[in-house]
Amino acid sequence: MFQCSNDYMIGILDSNLGGLILIKEIINKFPEYQILYFAHTARGPFDNKGEGTIKKCAEQGIDFLIKKGAKLIIVSDPCMAIVLKDTKTKVPVISLIDWLMDSAVKKSQNKRVGVIASHAVINSDFASKAIHQIDKGVKVLTKATPLLWPLIREGWLKRAVTKKVLKTYLYNLHCKQIDTLVLTDPVYSLLQDIIQIKIGRQVKIISPISIIGPYLQKFLEDKPEIKKGLQKGHKHQFFVSDANCQVKTLASQWLGQKIQLKEI
Amino acid sequence: MFQCSNDYMIGILDSNLGGLILIKEIINKFPEYQILYFAHTARGPFDNKGEGTIKKCAEQGIDFLIKKGAKLIIVSDPCMAIVLKDTKTKVPVISLIDWLMDSAVKKSQNKRVGVIASHAVINSDFASKAIHQIDKGVKVLTKATPLLWPLIREGWLKRAVTKKVLKTYLYNLHCKQIDTLVLTDPVYSLLQDIIQIKIGRQVKIISPISIIGPYLQKFLEDKPEIKKGLQKGHKHQFFVSDANCQVKTLASQWLGQKIQLKEI
Repeated sequence: MFQCSNDYMIGILDSNLGGLILIKEIINKFPEYQILYFAHTARGPFDNKGEGTIKKCAEQGIDFLIKKGAKLIIVSDPCMAIVLKDTKTKVPVISLIDWLMDSAVKKSQNKRVGVIASHAVINSDFASKAIHQIDKGVKVLTKATPLLWPLIREGWLKRAVTKKVLKTYLYNLHCKQIDTLVLTDPVYSLLQDIIQIKIGRQVKIISPISIIGPYLQKFLEDKPEIKKGLQKGHKHQFFVSDANCQVKTLASQWLGQKIQLKEI
Repeated sequence: MFQCSNDYMIGILDSNLGGLILIKEIINKFPEYQILYFAHTARGPFDNKGEGTIKKCAEQGIDFLIKKGAKLIIVSDPCMAIVLKDTKTKVPVISLIDWLMDSAVKKSQNKRVGVIASHAVINSDFASKAIHQIDKGVKVLTKATPLLWPLIREGWLKRAVTKKVLKTYLYNLHCKQIDTLVLTDPVYSLLQDIIQIKIGRQVKIISPISIIGPYLQKFLEDKPEIKKGLQKGHKHQFFVSDANCQVKTLASQWLGQKIQLKEI
């Protein structure tokens, strides 16, 4: 069992380190709060795994974060967020992907929203369900983009191959005249410039980075009892379940600073 | 605990289903033997995981296969094979990658061998060590090719993007005048035609498919006590630790027949 903590922090649950890009933005926008990060790197990526496997890992992560002192948890990995839908937890668990869908509905004017995500997210039909719960009149067009993660992990951010892959992935969404495109994974924002070119300048891009500030601000204003309980300070803590060399390198690159990753 | 079995079979330990391509070849060359397959799909891919994580999973797989009746085990996943190096087991555990390196040394005439593999295999420096144990005079040139698996899984076998990625990956090996190229993963053989074009017609390709027949034949001749103990029949059994839709589809595609995948 994990040791309990009396420091109350904002917990981030992740699988593949993409959440670190989100944390960079949270630290930037809310420098007063402490972050508690856990990525289940020994088990992810979850793109090609079944719901049962993902749920077990997500619940382990939630359990760890609560015991370590998370007062609220933001699930940055979309696959984990989806399977946690009806899980009962002791602290509020926020699915980043829910906020993304909400933002997309609010921003779209022609009511045609595109969503790019992993196979697991697209196959779950989550995007349509979440958007239609808010507005049944929105047409949701999805595309699985499983090659983006491997390309990003390789650092091939500006290569011709990456541009070609994005062109292929986005062609249909472009033809179907979406006016809003949701990037479900924080790491996709590393390709945002090329995505914007390939999908067209008139399309608004909704990314975890663009929404986290205003949505987290509003959440904390609506829940003053949680806001009050959050510890002030800069002692962010970063945990992973597998701290191999590549994980350490990517963590520093994506967070933009050297960090101490603890393996549990 | 797993239930024990009295059927003695050839066990195949895998992570990402690539071993099914190997099984197709084994069934073709040795139709009399029964195969017992286990892929730890709930935990793999192991490309970006540390040695501790991979070893734990590999040992779980070995344990399962032995209890189910494996009389010998062929480890088709190179990452798993490497970490099992000094593990003591009750039945012979054969690393496919060892056979590949042995074959490459025998086939190379200019003593310049190229190896393509995942990051975990390349970073471990396994290829050089294994080859230098046989012949210190062989120059080993390696290249990590992590994008091949995602491209193959997507079925992008003949796309321009895949050709471009292979050209990039193989350019240096081509310039350094290797005469032998080792494909460490059985799934790479699905791209063998393009690999042959990009690396040059004069380069001999050593693949799991090309070596499994003669090496397994010799192994069984050298160990008649094992050969004698193997059960005859066609009741192959296929187990995975996560049987999601994509796993089921790929399994049928790569083995070339519909199979019943049991989830454990």
